[in-house]
Amino acid sequence: MVQYVGVENLTALIRSVGIETFLSELAGYIEDDFRRWPAFDKVPRVASHSSEGVIELMPTADDMLYGFKYVNGHPSNIHKGLQTVTAFGVLSDVRSGYPLLLSEMTLLTALRTAATSAVAARYLARPDSRVMAIIGLGAQSEFQATAFKALLGITHLRVYDLAPAATLKFCRNMRDSGLDVIVAESSQYAVLGADIITTITADKLKATILSDNMIGAGVHINAVGGDCPGKTELQAEILLRGRVFVELPEQTRIEGEIQQMAEDFPVTELWQVVAGEDPGRRSACEVTIFDSVGFATEDFSALRYLRDKVQDTNFHTEIDLLAELPDPRNLFGLLKA
Amino acid sequence: MVQYVGVENLTALIRSVGIETFLSELAGYIEDDFRRWPAFDKVPRVASHSSEGVIELMPTADDMLYGFKYVNGHPSNIHKGLQTVTAFGVLSDVRSGYPLLLSEMTLLTALRTAATSAVAARYLARPDSRVMAIIGLGAQSEFQATAFKALLGITHLRVYDLAPAATLKFCRNMRDSGLDVIVAESSQYAVLGADIITTITADKLKATILSDNMIGAGVHINAVGGDCPGKTELQAEILLRGRVFVELPEQTRIEGEIQQMAEDFPVTELWQVVAGEDPGRRSACEVTIFDSVGFATEDFSALRYLRDKVQDTNFHTEIDLLAELPDPRNLFGLLKA
Repeated sequence: MVQYVGVENLTALIRSVGIETFLSELAGYIEDDFRRWPAFDKVPRVASHSSEGVIELMPTADDMLYGFKYVNGHPSNIHKGLQTVTAFGVLSDVRSGYPLLLSEMTLLTALRTAATSAVAARYLARPDSRVMAIIGLGAQSEFQATAFKALLGITHLRVYDLAPAATLKFCRNMRDSGLDVIVAESSQYAVLGADIITTITADKLKATILSDNMIGAGVHINAVGGDCPGKTELQAEILLRGRVFVELPEQTRIEGEIQQMAEDFPVTELWQVVAGEDPGRRSACEVTIFDSVGFATEDFSALRYLRDKVQDTNFHTEIDLLAELPDPRNLFGLLKA
Repeated sequence: MVQYVGVENLTALIRSVGIETFLSELAGYIEDDFRRWPAFDKVPRVASHSSEGVIELMPTADDMLYGFKYVNGHPSNIHKGLQTVTAFGVLSDVRSGYPLLLSEMTLLTALRTAATSAVAARYLARPDSRVMAIIGLGAQSEFQATAFKALLGITHLRVYDLAPAATLKFCRNMRDSGLDVIVAESSQYAVLGADIITTITADKLKATILSDNMIGAGVHINAVGGDCPGKTELQAEILLRGRVFVELPEQTRIEGEIQQMAEDFPVTELWQVVAGEDPGRRSACEVTIFDSVGFATEDFSALRYLRDKVQDTNFHTEIDLLAELPDPRNLFGLLKA
C-alpha cells in the first residue's frame, strides 16, 4: 500500500502542527538538503507546452529516495475559476523503485516556496531585519509573510497590489497573524524603510516592479515572481549592483531574473552558502538578491518532511496503487483469484 | 476531485468486462492512437538510474489530454519477494492542466503491452496464424497468450521456460483459457510449426533465445523481452533476414533488438503500417519482426480507455489530490477555514 496525503489531511495536519511550526520544520529539511546538494541527481524538468499553459514533471533523487512533482501552470485558469498552478508529488524508495507516498502539492508547493525564501534570507538578509515589503498579494503572499515571521522574526509588513481584491484577501488572511501590516498606495511607497523586499507579482511579462532607485543599501530582495521565460520583475541595474544567489544556475538563467543578463553573469549558488562554502551577505550595506525559481530538491525536501511527519498519525490514508502479490511473477493470478 | 482506479477496482473491472473483451477494446484505443501518431507530443522518457534499478517517467500528450506513467525496473526485487516492474499513471486535461484520473498501471502495463503486440501482429502476422510459441513464461506471458487468442484467433500455444515453476504457473493460469497448450522441452522444439513466436525472457543479457536456423519462412516474431540497453533475445541474422517494425525508432535503437545493428539499420514504424502508409506484411513467406520496447502513447491509450470505461461505474473512487477553492487566488484561506 502507498501512503496518501490529500488536501483534507494536509490541511488538518498543518492546522494541528501550526503553520509557523510547519514552515520552520519544513525549512529545516530544505536547509539540510541544500547542504548536501552534490548528493542529488539533478535533471532538468520535463515540460509539455500547449497554447493554454504547461505541464511539468520535476524529478530528483538521492541514493535512498526518489521524488517527483507534477505541476501545471495555466494563467488563463483564473478566468475559469480554477487555480493557475496545481501540483502533486510522489516519494519512492530508490532500492525497490516502489512508491511510498503520494501527496497533494498545491499547498505544499506554496509552503516550500515560502520556506525556501526564508532559508535563503536567513543567510542573505541583515540579521536585524524586521520590516518586509511584499509587492504582489496573490496566492503565495501570505505564505511568504508567515514564513518570514516564523523564520526571520519579521514584525512589520508593507504591502502593495494593483488589485484591491487581492489586498483585501491578504489583509483578511493576515488579521490574526501578529504581523503589523501597512497597505501602501504604490510599490514605491511599500519599499520605503523595508529591510527585505519580496516581489511576487503574477504578470507574465518583462515588468519593472522594482527599479534601481527604489533599492537602498543593505536591502535583501526575495525575487519570487520572475520564474519563467519572458517573466521578470527587477530592473537589470539592480542585478548589476547587488550579489545574485540562485538555486540551479542553468535553470535560473532561463527562468529567473537573470534571463535579462549575459550568459556568464556571475551568480552564487544558494547551496554553497548553506554549506558554508560562500559567506553569503558580506556587509550590512550590500544588496543581496535571491533569484528564486523553485527547484525539484525543494519538493523532495517537502515530501521527505511530510512523510516523516505523518508516520504514526491519522493524517494519511493508504491507497492500493501497487499490487501485493503472493508470487511476484504471477501478475495474471490477480485476475484469476 | 480526481478519479482513482487502484488495483482492486481495476481487477474488478477487468473481471466484470472479461479479460478478452478488455484486451480487444484496449487494442482498439491503441490502434486509434497509432493511427494519429503525428498528433502526439513525443519526448524521451526521463530515467533516474541507481545501482539497483531505474525509475522512469514517460509523458506524452495530444492537444486534449496529457498522460504520464511512472514505472520502475528493479531486477533484484524478485529476490525480495517484490515485483521487478511496478507502475502508475495520470491522465490530465491539457487545457486546464488539472489531473483527471490516477490509476495503478502495473496490471494496465501488462495489458497494454500484450494488446500492442496483438495490434502489431494483426498487421504483420499471416492472417491464417493459429499456433503461437512463447519463450519465457514470466509475468507477461499469460497476457500475451490471452491477447493473441482474443485478437488474432490463436488456438494453440507451444511454450518453454527454463524454470519449471514458471511453466507450472503459466499452465495453471491458462487451464480454462480455451487454448491448447503444449509444454516444449526446449526453445527449439517450442518454435516448431509456430506461425508466431513471442519472446519474453527476463535475463538482462545479450542472449540468443532465437537463432536464425530456428525461424521458418512466413513467421512473425513478437520480440518483447529485449527492451533495455544490454538486453536482446534475437540473433542479428534474423533481423537481417526479416523486416523489422518498431514503435519509436530513436528509442528502439537504444533499447530494442536493433541495438545490435548499425545506427542506420532500416526499420519501419508501426504507426505507418496502422495508418496505411506501409503495407506491413507483403507476402506469406516474409519474416516479420515487431521489435517491441513499449512507448508512452500506449500508456496514454490505456489511461484514455480506462477513463472512458469507468465513467458512470463504481470501478473508481475520488481522491482529493486537488484543492477546490471558492476563490482560486485564496490558497491560504484553506488553512483558515
